[in-house]
Amino acid sequence: MAKQLLGKEVTAALNEKIIGQVKELKEKGVSPKLGIIRVGERPDDISYETGATKRCDTLGVEVEKILLPEDVSKEELLAVIDKVNKDDTIHGVLMFRPLPAHLKAVQSEIENALDPAKDVDCMTHLSLAGVFEGKPLGFPPCTPQACMEILDYYGIDCKGKNAVVIGRSLVVGKPAAMMLMGKNATVTVCHTKTVDVPAIAREADILISCAGVLNSLTKEYVRPGQIVIDVSINWDPEKINKKGGKGAIAGDAVFDEVEPIVEAITPVPGGVGSVTTSVLVGHVVEAAMRKFA
Amino acid sequence: MAKQLLGKEVTAALNEKIIGQVKELKEKGVSPKLGIIRVGERPDDISYETGATKRCDTLGVEVEKILLPEDVSKEELLAVIDKVNKDDTIHGVLMFRPLPAHLKAVQSEIENALDPAKDVDCMTHLSLAGVFEGKPLGFPPCTPQACMEILDYYGIDCKGKNAVVIGRSLVVGKPAAMMLMGKNATVTVCHTKTVDVPAIAREADILISCAGVLNSLTKEYVRPGQIVIDVSINWDPEKINKKGGKGAIAGDAVFDEVEPIVEAITPVPGGVGSVTTSVLVGHVVEAAMRKFA
Repeated sequence: MAKQLLGKEVTAALNEKIIGQVKELKEKGVSPKLGIIRVGERPDDISYETGATKRCDTLGVEVEKILLPEDVSKEELLAVIDKVNKDDTIHGVLMFRPLPAHLKAVQSEIENALDPAKDVDCMTHLSLAGVFEGKPLGFPPCTPQACMEILDYYGIDCKGKNAVVIGRSLVVGKPAAMMLMGKNATVTVCHTKTVDVPAIAREADILISCAGVLNSLTKEYVRPGQIVIDVSINWDPEKINKKGGKGAIAGDAVFDEVEPIVEAITPVPGGVGSVTTSVLVGHVVEAAMRKFA
Repeated sequence: MAKQLLGKEVTAALNEKIIGQVKELKEKGVSPKLGIIRVGERPDDISYETGATKRCDTLGVEVEKILLPEDVSKEELLAVIDKVNKDDTIHGVLMFRPLPAHLKAVQSEIENALDPAKDVDCMTHLSLAGVFEGKPLGFPPCTPQACMEILDYYGIDCKGKNAVVIGRSLVVGKPAAMMLMGKNATVTVCHTKTVDVPAIAREADILISCAGVLNSLTKEYVRPGQIVIDVSINWDPEKINKKGGKGAIAGDAVFDEVEPIVEAITPVPGGVGSVTTSVLVGHVVEAAMRKFA
């Protein structure tokens, strides 16, 4: 029976820290604010926006929403970004992506128009360079940082440990690898072209799965003593949901067969995902603190 | 008896390609030019400058040297960088680093003043972001790219292979890891905090050693069938030099014990180092081509 690494415990500790920082800022007359730029009405975006707004409320961080129509032009969107860049009351900006199809070719240009000092969701080249260089140039992506917060909260020392990351995306896999390396782990990155991922995964002391493939992490991938961080949020049409029906969120792990073997594991839901929102809000507060440092 | 992966063969092929590109550019009225910024008279810098200048001459690339006194101010140096940025006849810029001690605190600011389009030696954040993202935003560092050129020239397919990089510097180790991942290798990065590097190194199909520690790569690190790229350039006071005396350049490998075991290995000197200069000149030509594309 593995120890469950619970997002809510990590989030509670993070929130406590953030609330303290917000208090200090407000005593200095600074009220940290997140600007949210949403194009269109995609349900996933709205759902994340609702969660982020609630968390900001809880933590005393203001939110300013800028909602744009699905057919917004590149010029209009760039004008909005220019406005938030110049707005001293907005400290961090979250812009939902991917942008609509007609902006796909210019998405990178639009992303990089944002002032990196406000790039709390790591969408600029400078933020990514910071992750690669291990320097606070912008902000790291929230999801891999949430993984690190979980490791830190539960006192899991990465130094000299073998860490295996399954997935090489720029949003999770590659940044997680850099962050683990920064914590002095010996890091291996596996991906779709890797031969025998299970054998490599079994060598891990710390296993981070961000494949995004339901039921891909089976008992063949694990051994006793491992720490497993299951990052992915997949839809499992067979999983029994809270209402007793079929269809629920699940990670990469076949939880019922992996959990009894390993030492500790994050559940899905209730693991990494729930920490990510507080990491985002923490970035907004950090951005405000950096500005007034 | 291992196959020797010879820098001069790779360089010859690279040079042929570069000469063709220079010819095409000159037919369009463009004469590619490298700007070299050197502060002070450090022998290592002068030696590299001499090598780069000769290689440029051979390949038909112009060189403009900007030599500054050891006590140059930040403002003077920034003015020089501004000038080369605006000079349309200079396509790539090499600035020797580290800068003198009095500029240490502002080195990053000075480095990032260079137009990334001319950053042929990967000193800007944008170039590093490009390496991390796998996009040609600037240019990758020349040394790890030289390793990739060697692998390519000798037809070594990285896809699905286990690659182990010993060293995690921003100049070689981390970029080499990203580039190997881009070639679909499964990459592990070892460093000074790694436990049992030899055991991990023996699992490698492709082993890149950039530890920079003389005699650190012993027979314990290798097995038959491996490709070994020895990146480091160390001074070995005991090695017999060309004149029959003691003292010569050597890599990380104890060559006499590693070479008989592995399948292929780069010698030092005569391996990676000799390819690096042509990679640099190739970047200058690529910068000129990008500008006129």
